[in-house]
Amino acid sequence: MRAVTVVPLEKDSVDLTDLPEPPEADGPVLVATRAVGVCGTDLEIIEGQYGWAPPGEDRLAIGHESLGEVLEAPDGSGFAKGDRVVAIVRRPDPEPCAACAAGQWDMCRNGKYTEWGIKEHHGYARERYRITPEFLVKVDPGLGDLGVLLEPTTVVAKAWDHIERIGARAVWQPHKVLVTGAGPIGLLAALLGRQRGLEVHVLDQVTDGLKPDLVAALGATYHHGSVRDAAVDADVVIECTGVGQLVFDVMETTATDGIVCLTGVSSGGRSLPVDAGMLNREMVLGNDVVFGSVNANRRHYEAGADALAKADHDWLARLVTRKVPLSSWKDAYARQPGDVKTVLSFADA
Amino acid sequence: MRAVTVVPLEKDSVDLTDLPEPPEADGPVLVATRAVGVCGTDLEIIEGQYGWAPPGEDRLAIGHESLGEVLEAPDGSGFAKGDRVVAIVRRPDPEPCAACAAGQWDMCRNGKYTEWGIKEHHGYARERYRITPEFLVKVDPGLGDLGVLLEPTTVVAKAWDHIERIGARAVWQPHKVLVTGAGPIGLLAALLGRQRGLEVHVLDQVTDGLKPDLVAALGATYHHGSVRDAAVDADVVIECTGVGQLVFDVMETTATDGIVCLTGVSSGGRSLPVDAGMLNREMVLGNDVVFGSVNANRRHYEAGADALAKADHDWLARLVTRKVPLSSWKDAYARQPGDVKTVLSFADA
Repeated sequence: MRAVTVVPLEKDSVDLTDLPEPPEADGPVLVATRAVGVCGTDLEIIEGQYGWAPPGEDRLAIGHESLGEVLEAPDGSGFAKGDRVVAIVRRPDPEPCAACAAGQWDMCRNGKYTEWGIKEHHGYARERYRITPEFLVKVDPGLGDLGVLLEPTTVVAKAWDHIERIGARAVWQPHKVLVTGAGPIGLLAALLGRQRGLEVHVLDQVTDGLKPDLVAALGATYHHGSVRDAAVDADVVIECTGVGQLVFDVMETTATDGIVCLTGVSSGGRSLPVDAGMLNREMVLGNDVVFGSVNANRRHYEAGADALAKADHDWLARLVTRKVPLSSWKDAYARQPGDVKTVLSFADA
Repeated sequence: MRAVTVVPLEKDSVDLTDLPEPPEADGPVLVATRAVGVCGTDLEIIEGQYGWAPPGEDRLAIGHESLGEVLEAPDGSGFAKGDRVVAIVRRPDPEPCAACAAGQWDMCRNGKYTEWGIKEHHGYARERYRITPEFLVKVDPGLGDLGVLLEPTTVVAKAWDHIERIGARAVWQPHKVLVTGAGPIGLLAALLGRQRGLEVHVLDQVTDGLKPDLVAALGATYHHGSVRDAAVDADVVIECTGVGQLVFDVMETTATDGIVCLTGVSSGGRSLPVDAGMLNREMVLGNDVVFGSVNANRRHYEAGADALAKADHDWLARLVTRKVPLSSWKDAYARQPGDVKTVLSFADA
């Protein structure tokens, strides 16, 4: 079968190659991939920054944002032929840490997890995969192929889950939310903020076009310019850019008892001047929290699926700015101006 | 009656002055001050950095770390003559914010609280005060005058409470704790860590003397030098110095799912080069949390009182490196090498 694969750590080794049918050992549910979303992680893997092939193999099938259709599922598995499904990315080690043993592989302590499409197992940019039911989540069939947005939604579902659990350490009644970055993660973070009835502000660099429109359509407020111009005294900040300066800017502008969630994976290597004493002082006197959030567990997939099901499907459809058939697969991995979410379609191939 | 007072914002205006007896409006319980602890906040107030006199007055009685003995208490108040008591520092505004209304004035959202001895109400460095029972906490009479250590203990009781509540957002089984700074707050943070059965490391600059001895006596490990030499991969860091570089150093060395609690109130004005991108990346991929913690509410006073009651009283006594009678009050506010906790004694006056 066809798959988009790379030789990990080898820049531009990405190709549409042939891969054996998925082994039965991968699980009893056979799924036909309908679509995979393209995100920064895929592009970094293609650039050779990281990525790990399955043990004993040279190439890794990429793709971790998936939507599939069940082809075969055993009785009692909870799945049936035709179900629209999304597969979970991270799997615990057979000898799990305490977090993984409790199903919280997103909090894995020992780093021994695998991530399908990233680390030590083929991903979903292949025509078919097999899986165990516990790592498969049904999505609302009414979403059509928009179910491919579930994986990025799980990232913000976890972010919101942890924001709320951390907030609950004390009495906490958030009103104002600032989201930095209006890419897919930022826009979905804003969606979940609006679904909670909160006042949402989104900051990005572009001055017009689709992103401001998408923000306005949520009933949120779009800003470009500085953090201070956008929303001071936010109770919640969800930082989705990973831009170093912005990370510190948002830490300095939150309300008392503010919570900043960092979700953007940045690269290092450049230093900024930071008034650490003042930052520390403001965090202490303001009871402020800053935390990082990565990945998601089954609970967040279920919360994300609920969030997508109740979202305006027309709004979700506008997030998918390009849908590329498998026959033109290379186009999916070449960034274009105006891209929000690019989807590689296996169903239209 | 005698009181140690300042003209707020007027450097070195501190003096032993006469103050009227406490007004009945302050509450039905009359308390004789036995001792007040001296902390950095007192010294900063004396330096004129901040401090707010009661409305309509020029001078502010300082002192927020108190131990007193009840002189008069109404029936049904829960207090009786002779009780050893500590008074809570922060009080909500008569029109409280949501946090204050729930008794969580340590998380006050609108800044309208008062703090006895700091902000808009006389403190406890006076011979007598009146108070309402809800802001008074009994301490184990077996502690003698060591009850004066309760207020700093409440700071770390809140820190630990929030560490544990934040940790509980997911499965979390901490083992290793790093405390930076072996002053009273750091040593009490280490005490509470040991009381939880955790492996505790304490980092300070001094190479010998009382601090290393006090750490060893807790069954904890003393370090001087760098954070990386002291304890990498700590699950919990309690930062008690407010030193800017140290704040960033500890953020970079925690374990996956690590929690850093900042408790040191630093001053700003100096910038450090910080690789914000790398710091952000490590926080995101490690699910790391950094949060500030200030003040304490009644629950933390009760937890702190329990912690002191079950601590080794001889160990606690060693924290009090100088006990200065009121007649020599000036000495209490002059820092000396080797000071851990200085106590101004009203009982021996």
